[in-house]
Amino acid sequence: MTGKLYGLGLGPGDPELLTLKAVRILRQVPVIAWPAPDTGESFARSIAAPHLPGGQVEVPIVVPMRTERFPARDVYDTAAGEIAAHLDAGRDVAVLCEGDPFFYGSFMYVFERLAGTYETEVVPGVSSIMAAASAAGRPLAARNDVLTVVPGPLCDEELTNRINAAGALAIIKIGRHFNRLRTLIEKLNLLPQAVYAERVSLGSERLMPLAQVTEDTAPYFSMILIYKGGEDWIHALPGSTS
Amino acid sequence: MTGKLYGLGLGPGDPELLTLKAVRILRQVPVIAWPAPDTGESFARSIAAPHLPGGQVEVPIVVPMRTERFPARDVYDTAAGEIAAHLDAGRDVAVLCEGDPFFYGSFMYVFERLAGTYETEVVPGVSSIMAAASAAGRPLAARNDVLTVVPGPLCDEELTNRINAAGALAIIKIGRHFNRLRTLIEKLNLLPQAVYAERVSLGSERLMPLAQVTEDTAPYFSMILIYKGGEDWIHALPGSTS
Repeated sequence: MTGKLYGLGLGPGDPELLTLKAVRILRQVPVIAWPAPDTGESFARSIAAPHLPGGQVEVPIVVPMRTERFPARDVYDTAAGEIAAHLDAGRDVAVLCEGDPFFYGSFMYVFERLAGTYETEVVPGVSSIMAAASAAGRPLAARNDVLTVVPGPLCDEELTNRINAAGALAIIKIGRHFNRLRTLIEKLNLLPQAVYAERVSLGSERLMPLAQVTEDTAPYFSMILIYKGGEDWIHALPGSTS
Repeated sequence: MTGKLYGLGLGPGDPELLTLKAVRILRQVPVIAWPAPDTGESFARSIAAPHLPGGQVEVPIVVPMRTERFPARDVYDTAAGEIAAHLDAGRDVAVLCEGDPFFYGSFMYVFERLAGTYETEVVPGVSSIMAAASAAGRPLAARNDVLTVVPGPLCDEELTNRINAAGALAIIKIGRHFNRLRTLIEKLNLLPQAVYAERVSLGSERLMPLAQVTEDTAPYFSMILIYKGGEDWIHALPGSTS
């Protein structure tokens, strides 16, 4: 009998935001795999760390973050091969995923290589977008609001159309696009209605008006929330210096 | 000292999809409040039930589901008053929320009445949208997809614009709008690309091609996911009779 593949949503970062189901599976599988940048630690593994029983086989999936050449096909081919070998030997494998595995997660690159061959279960997790709204202290979408989630790498024209058409809006994957995005949001006169959120739910969380951010880049795990009509309470967020 | 108010995200329905944090708070608060329809049980309370220690004071928030007259202002005024009395007496109160409290949740009606006066913490939960994508077995959004979440009560014209502009799309709050929505999706030639999801993550879960649904209405806790280009795998979903 072959093993079972799990895509395990671990939530936004706080190890207490794992689901009971994720913790159970995390403790019972003999093999875990996790994405990592080529320098620095794996965020997914750090979320899971307090729950790991020890003694598990670990499969790092090291993805170079330097380029836009994503997905790194060879990296995922190799990782999928290594995971498949464990599955073939009857060992269950859990792939650790920040947030939710099927919500802009890199798990899809493993999934599309293996799910056709092996029994696969995806365990949903708390998305960082939900966690950011909780941290900001305001509902992201309510009643008949339309919510739009937009990746930051899109071009200015498409972003402008999306932002203008949206009710509530979350811009994810901002990273090195941060400065361009802030400039665009300012041009659209929405800067006072934008919240910057970084590493939500962690001790290092930063939650502040976008207008108060002084850096020109942002880490990978950050986002911008636009709350149309939110000037007054955004202005008063803790990060504000005014 | 006054008590603390919690908005507790309980996830999509499976009691194992609560976060560790939600379980901890659920067990330690002396008072829980939960929304319920005027007939039938509270879905939020049923998700929490296996984790309740017993002996807690319970505050039902009974909201009539018959009409569009929502929010039912008087109901929330009365509930907020009752919760405030517990907080004033120094008792922490957790409001139980299906899914995530700030993602189209009714918690906002309690929040907007009390958060200005009492210390409040929102604990994010797994959204039913993420759980539906996990159950469907396909990423809802990936790479540079734009994801749009649209409430079903919107008018046909706005829905058409949103559906046409969207990459991935989730239509929530479908209930009595189900037949109108299905007719609209058929008119837009997107019926083969639509998945119907009901009570995801529960034993009574239904996950099938929208084209195969024979009913003309849907329960409150159901949704439609549109995966553009998803004809082939949607056609083969278990609910299909073809």
